Amino acid sequence: MTTHRLGDLARQAGARLIGDADCGITGLSVLQEAKSGSISFLSNSKYRKYLKTTKASAVILEQKFLDECPTNALVSDNPYLVFAKIAQLIAPLPEKKAGRHVSAIVASSACIDVSASIGPGVVIEDDAVIGAGVDIGAGCVIGKGCQIGDDSRLVTNVTLCHGVTIGSRVLIHPGAIIGSDGFGLANDNGVWIKVPQLGSVCVGDDVEIGANTTIDRGAINDTLIGDGVKLDNQIQIAHNVEIGAHTAIAACVGVAGSTRIGKQCTLAGGVGVVGHLEIADNVHFSAQTLVTRSFTEPGYFSGNLPAVPNSVWRKSIARIRQLEDIAQRVRHLEKQSQQMIDDKLDQDI
Amino acid sequence: MTTHRLGDLARQAGARLIGDADCGITGLSVLQEAKSGSISFLSNSKYRKYLKTTKASAVILEQKFLDECPTNALVSDNPYLVFAKIAQLIAPLPEKKAGRHVSAIVASSACIDVSASIGPGVVIEDDAVIGAGVDIGAGCVIGKGCQIGDDSRLVTNVTLCHGVTIGSRVLIHPGAIIGSDGFGLANDNGVWIKVPQLGSVCVGDDVEIGANTTIDRGAINDTLIGDGVKLDNQIQIAHNVEIGAHTAIAACVGVAGSTRIGKQCTLAGGVGVVGHLEIADNVHFSAQTLVTRSFTEPGYFSGNLPAVPNSVWRKSIARIRQLEDIAQRVRHLEKQSQQMIDDKLDQDI
Amino acid sequence: MTTHRLGDLARQAGARLIGDADCGITGLSVLQEAKSGSISFLSNSKYRKYLKTTKASAVILEQKFLDECPTNALVSDNPYLVFAKIAQLIAPLPEKKAGRHVSAIVASSACIDVSASIGPGVVIEDDAVIGAGVDIGAGCVIGKGCQIGDDSRLVTNVTLCHGVTIGSRVLIHPGAIIGSDGFGLANDNGVWIKVPQLGSVCVGDDVEIGANTTIDRGAINDTLIGDGVKLDNQIQIAHNVEIGAHTAIAACVGVAGSTRIGKQCTLAGGVGVVGHLEIADNVHFSAQTLVTRSFTEPGYFSGNLPAVPNSVWRKSIARIRQLEDIAQRVRHLEKQSQQMIDDKLDQDI
Repeated sequence: MTTHRLGDLARQAGARLIGDADCGITGLSVLQEAKSGSISFLSNSKYRKYLKTTKASAVILEQKFLDECPTNALVSDNPYLVFAKIAQLIAPLPEKKAGRHVSAIVASSACIDVSASIGPGVVIEDDAVIGAGVDIGAGCVIGKGCQIGDDSRLVTNVTLCHGVTIGSRVLIHPGAIIGSDGFGLANDNGVWIKVPQLGSVCVGDDVEIGANTTIDRGAINDTLIGDGVKLDNQIQIAHNVEIGAHTAIAACVGVAGSTRIGKQCTLAGGVGVVGHLEIADNVHFSAQTLVTRSFTEPGYFSGNLPAVPNSVWRKSIARIRQLEDIAQRVRHLEKQSQQMIDDKLDQDI
Repeated sequence: MTTHRLGDLARQAGARLIGDADCGITGLSVLQEAKSGSISFLSNSKYRKYLKTTKASAVILEQKFLDECPTNALVSDNPYLVFAKIAQLIAPLPEKKAGRHVSAIVASSACIDVSASIGPGVVIEDDAVIGAGVDIGAGCVIGKGCQIGDDSRLVTNVTLCHGVTIGSRVLIHPGAIIGSDGFGLANDNGVWIKVPQLGSVCVGDDVEIGANTTIDRGAINDTLIGDGVKLDNQIQIAHNVEIGAHTAIAACVGVAGSTRIGKQCTLAGGVGVVGHLEIADNVHFSAQTLVTRSFTEPGYFSGNLPAVPNSVWRKSIARIRQLEDIAQRVRHLEKQSQQMIDDKLDQDI
Repeated sequence: MTTHRLGDLARQAGARLIGDADCGITGLSVLQEAKSGSISFLSNSKYRKYLKTTKASAVILEQKFLDECPTNALVSDNPYLVFAKIAQLIAPLPEKKAGRHVSAIVASSACIDVSASIGPGVVIEDDAVIGAGVDIGAGCVIGKGCQIGDDSRLVTNVTLCHGVTIGSRVLIHPGAIIGSDGFGLANDNGVWIKVPQLGSVCVGDDVEIGANTTIDRGAINDTLIGDGVKLDNQIQIAHNVEIGAHTAIAACVGVAGSTRIGKQCTLAGGVGVVGHLEIADNVHFSAQTLVTRSFTEPGYFSGNLPAVPNSVWRKSIARIRQLEDIAQRVRHLEKQSQQMIDDKLDQDI
């Protein structure tokens, strides 16, 4: 890594510098392992205990922690954002060579920009259109008629099935599958009949798609992933799902068919969403929550059962199963109690 | 798409036509976006609101909605099945060229039918047997001694480990892994010792296996997937699981080792099934349900906690943890109440 | 399979032989399907019913079941461990040919031991270092600067992103992705900004990684997988997670960022662990449990809601939502009851 002037980094990242603008920064590190020349950050208060003794040359933090900072500080209301911007400035760009590797198999009808990089073993099928600056890593398969916008990157072993459209500046991680058939089945006296999946997938600009995530093609219309959507690893997006712009979905989430999720939502890890629902903008679901109905207003929603010691859990589960009984006994007690009060009133009268 | 006569489609799909048999159908669409020449369907009542104003040239629906249909109708008790059949008639077949791509790497001992299509970058190892009309897409790896029945299709980047048997007309989507080692471990004073996985996987006819789904090979015997089974994406089937014919499993389900699932069952998304269980035929589990015991009778079973507003959920969770206490307080109240009743009886006497 | 002398197998696997040491063993089988010449085992009491009538030539079992064994016995306190060792002795080793397949694409700067086996279509990028006896199967991609220790095996279609370090005797199953970007995002007024992921992944010795499992690279420091860790299929390990030695994690588990899991823990299938937690050594979580806080002591922890008939479940869910109400009614009854007791005391006085 080259050396960056701290004052320049502060200015470019939009933070207020308290300290030496000429301090040289060569790398990034966590507070507790920082060495001279590195810049660190404090955004999760769990790590505050490491601030006072950090050896970092600069720390990005909120105003309220400034007193505890033993070195140069970059002050911001959003230290993690400042850190992200500085990391982008400092981190080396991935290498990319325009042109195609000799082992790539490219259909003659495919249209590939001269500035695109096509890696070893890549397969590009008929009529695909690959934009300027696109980087397709080893082993990717680009199906017939796919379109990939400028400056997008498919890291390695990514599969785009036929007819998929990918926007610009999209980043797709290894093993992701875009455009596989939706799970469309009609039941004919106990035998499942396949419903052909004739739509496709349309992915907007600035989207990130995690490793081994799958996005199915639509049955008739397309599955739609909005601009700026961020999908973590191991996610399943079913056919005809629509995800609004700038929604972020953590790992291991499954969204069932035809559900529409609004803009700027967040789904934590392991969430499941059933099909044919409408989720408004700015809706947030906690980890492992199951979403079984539409949510038409913004808000935070949950439905999980956090871990407790096994003995406690066994009793809780047993009691949950007795809840019907408990509720009836409470109702009976209420009646008895009311009867006694009535009797007493009668007596008193 | 070519033009199909509506009367012919109705006859071939087994629906009753109300309207113009000579109407020309060129495509499929959803009710609310249909144009002249397209056929649509109504099978989920959520979409009934779009029926009266649809521009489709024909709609597949149940008798009870016929009065609301503004155009030609195909009447059936199972509109989705009729739609599936018509989509199969209208949809173009995927292109398939017999022969092997020059970049495919095929062991000389492999036996490949002349009518099979072997795509670019495919690897076929020793002694594999590939049936008539089989279509193996780009990047698939077929392990030593695998057998694939007639007219099966492996879309792209599918892995069959050694010795796996696949039936006829099986469709396997990208990234699926069939025949990986089961998770067999014996504990030797805190260190895990691998149990070699010596069985294989046997997949029946007319099976569909979703993108990035994994099916492990058996430890001694084979893992068995019955005829007509449909597996969605991101599913994990552990070693020695047996799945009965025509069972359908939605995305993100995990089935642990040696569990046997009957015929015509359905597992909704995110279900988990622990190992060594017996699940009868016609058993149905709701989304995200955890199955911890055998179910020997048909029926619908559930065990999830649907999303509610965070504030409600926090109170519920707190109360669940107080359930033991609440139950004891109810018992105490019952004793008090009984005591008071007894006392009153004593007084009255 | 060749014939093994039963006495030799018993001695090598550390079991006590009751019976004929010269009995010839040619294979392994389950109790209920065993034939002469095969050895079987009883470690799960669910299968005890098959012991008395087994046709196996020998059975591995605990002392307490010896009376029911109709044939030669190998007695051990840990029959499954003995079975694992005997299976390792009997099972054929996977074939491996030193050298590289003609279709492999290997960077000239990569350093590959002459005893390593590089399969068809493998891509090895710049500066990778591949140890002695390593076996890299068809379609694997080894990123720039990766290091793989001696005798490790990458089965098929495995992706190692740049700079990943793999120990010795590591086994990685098909479709696994090691070193994909962590899900690091900072929010800038509703738009997500990517945090570059500059760390890597370091995997210890004797680790097993399941099919389609994903392990993300660290944001600054490395994600760490300890020696002897066993990961099943479809697992997601997020950035900067640390997993202690000899911990075993079953399929479909997700562990969120920066969480540290101790040694010799077990996570059953479908468990979710949120980020930035500390889990002690010897902690065990039941299937589908959500872990939302640190656990600093060994123990068994749970938090799931096992399947029950739908009608029972509907009532339970309704009652859970009424819990707040029930709790308040119980409190009201307690007050009423106390009032009545006080009134009675007043009367009696």
